Amino acid sequence: MLEELGIRAKEAEKELMVASTVEKNAALKSIADALVMNADEIIEANAKDIQNGIDNGMSKSLLDRLKLDRERIEGMAQGVLDVVSLPDPVGRVLNSFERPNGLKIQKVSTPLGVIGVIFEARPNVTSDAAALALKSGNAVILRGGKEAINSNTKIAQVMRQAVKETGMNEDVIQLVENTTRESSTALMTLNGYVDVLIPRGGAGLIQAVVKNATVPVIETGVGNCHVYVDRDADIDMAVEIVFNAKTNRPSVCNAAESLLIHKDVAKEALVKIKEKLDEKEVELVGDKEAIDILKDSKASDGFEIEEATDEDWATEYLDYKMSVKIVDTLEEAIEHIYKYSSGHSECIVTESEDRANEFMDRVDSAAVYVNASTRFTDGGEFGFGAEIGISTQKLHARGPIGLPELQSFKYKVYGTGQIR
Amino acid sequence: MLEELGIRAKEAEKELMVASTVEKNAALKSIADALVMNADEIIEANAKDIQNGIDNGMSKSLLDRLKLDRERIEGMAQGVLDVVSLPDPVGRVLNSFERPNGLKIQKVSTPLGVIGVIFEARPNVTSDAAALALKSGNAVILRGGKEAINSNTKIAQVMRQAVKETGMNEDVIQLVENTTRESSTALMTLNGYVDVLIPRGGAGLIQAVVKNATVPVIETGVGNCHVYVDRDADIDMAVEIVFNAKTNRPSVCNAAESLLIHKDVAKEALVKIKEKLDEKEVELVGDKEAIDILKDSKASDGFEIEEATDEDWATEYLDYKMSVKIVDTLEEAIEHIYKYSSGHSECIVTESEDRANEFMDRVDSAAVYVNASTRFTDGGEFGFGAEIGISTQKLHARGPIGLPELQSFKYKVYGTGQIR
Repeated sequence: MLEELGIRAKEAEKELMVASTVEKNAALKSIADALVMNADEIIEANAKDIQNGIDNGMSKSLLDRLKLDRERIEGMAQGVLDVVSLPDPVGRVLNSFERPNGLKIQKVSTPLGVIGVIFEARPNVTSDAAALALKSGNAVILRGGKEAINSNTKIAQVMRQAVKETGMNEDVIQLVENTTRESSTALMTLNGYVDVLIPRGGAGLIQAVVKNATVPVIETGVGNCHVYVDRDADIDMAVEIVFNAKTNRPSVCNAAESLLIHKDVAKEALVKIKEKLDEKEVELVGDKEAIDILKDSKASDGFEIEEATDEDWATEYLDYKMSVKIVDTLEEAIEHIYKYSSGHSECIVTESEDRANEFMDRVDSAAVYVNASTRFTDGGEFGFGAEIGISTQKLHARGPIGLPELQSFKYKVYGTGQIR
Repeated sequence: MLEELGIRAKEAEKELMVASTVEKNAALKSIADALVMNADEIIEANAKDIQNGIDNGMSKSLLDRLKLDRERIEGMAQGVLDVVSLPDPVGRVLNSFERPNGLKIQKVSTPLGVIGVIFEARPNVTSDAAALALKSGNAVILRGGKEAINSNTKIAQVMRQAVKETGMNEDVIQLVENTTRESSTALMTLNGYVDVLIPRGGAGLIQAVVKNATVPVIETGVGNCHVYVDRDADIDMAVEIVFNAKTNRPSVCNAAESLLIHKDVAKEALVKIKEKLDEKEVELVGDKEAIDILKDSKASDGFEIEEATDEDWATEYLDYKMSVKIVDTLEEAIEHIYKYSSGHSECIVTESEDRANEFMDRVDSAAVYVNASTRFTDGGEFGFGAEIGISTQKLHARGPIGLPELQSFKYKVYGTGQIR
């Protein structure tokens, strides 16, 4: 059954690959309009998912993610319209050169082809992913979680109809309506039809995809992010950055999970940071040195800090919790990050350019910061307009995956009869 | 055991990632010198592989690929020296922009990390792959075929010693000495240590890697390449291009396997092409129209042409054999290629710019040619200096994989205390 979707996606992709910017934008505008026009039907379908969620004891926060109302649907439509205004990434000449034999070679961006997206219970991903795929000339096969199947089915139906009305093949957007584990595995192994698979969700989903997929994958989203407060840091700035990176939105992948502090400034910095984090009741776990400092400080009044385990250093809490380690040297901070980081985002707070450069050259993560919150690793914040996820692998895409990252390239070679 | 290699590779990679061009070139020169200095020992080790090959009934052509003599070893050393002169791909600023909040963001090329290479019985791949990996700042884990294990072990040992003598950690180059199937599978699933795996070899090896690998893979090398002779072709040019693409070196992936001819020029073109291909005794299989044309022509004297099956259209012969189809339209040619091509290289021979552009825009292959032989899809011919293979996937790298394709990137973000 999945193969049938694959065949149709490939067929639709042949036209979409060479569609003009005008055609693609018309389809996107039609989608945005249709989402708003059909908001009542979408809300009705969503109500079934919500009822099922309640019946199955779904948590309040998950129910909130799942729920659609008119405002949220208007937000989804606006997200699609935002993609209209982004530059078309297809057909850009990336490089151009001539060989001694007279061959003229152009390296030109092209769509990847068919993108598979596996995601969990957020129905807005359906329209976000479809819009980004369409604008970048890629057909998309969406496979959402069973918790949102009624919502997703309706949204996909509305989008397909809207695309069709502009004269485009509606199979540029397809939804896998079967939400069994088998359908998920089938999508992961749809070689020959799926050019890249992007999982959007928690660590469990991503690991399942990495383990089982035989199609190419872009791994996304796990962020065990570090902030290192250097010997030469502006301590007040460090306090603000750590507080923001940890507490601005703890549930997302670019939130900081681990704090490293140079021993020379450990006492002052840690006490001030702890005071600030107390405003949001952030739980700290730390190494012995960190615990000793806070035992002596006012901030420790009535507060017991547990010793951090090896597991703590490796954990993405996604919560109001943070691990703290005092390091003797910049080197030790870099080594700690090398050992425990998931390669997402890391920051050094320092006034020393040399030390900043050493940190940024040697820390091997998608985004490395000096004197700024890790929370900026985001397609919108980077100015990409939108993102389909944040890649933590090094192949193809790294960091926020925007429209340019949804491109491959090909070589166009212009000859006059050259042979070898 | 493989994990041990992975740990050592990651450790060595930490230094190699930030090594200077001078340091990397010194290591490469040391390798080139050492290969020549130790040629006798390498030849001695190779002699064992050759003897084992003879004892196991290895074919003459495989024995020839396996065999090393002084001249071939000098060729390997020269290949390493060629990489010295290539520009260092690491640390290039690919993009640079400032955000309204004052954040300065640089997108900078970085090594991929640890590259795994699985290859068959060509011992020269050992030094080729190691040199390209080293220059691009990547540690490499090599896993060659058991037929060449004595040669590969000696070559790796010589290279590691040469690297060490320049003060570099020799674990930047490691060889898997266990050549069981288990060691191969272990390398394909060495997640957390191998950042990308590149198979170099026949279709069987590549399929095994695609099926079994859980680490990111760059699929390489299968080339079912087409030449399409258009209605508006210069027929004499078409004859030369088809002859070259098919017979210049039939055993390689950029050789043409299938010939498509527009019906309006089919008779003249096919008769002339057949005459030329007869010089090399190329066997043709064709559709009914092609068979009819050649039945009526002189070229068919004493030559029976079989009708092409569906399997023929999909086959990479790698031999003096070619399938021929007469098409009614450019559209039909593009559709045929869409259905059967492996996405490697395709050529249109035409004097019409419009028809050339339509072909080149719509054919979704790594390299698309107008009026030139498909044999140019090659890192050397493209001016890349060297290649580690030719990618037929669309993720990350497409076409010849040179030094720039062995890079990832990261974002360096320079702030002054920015928070969200």
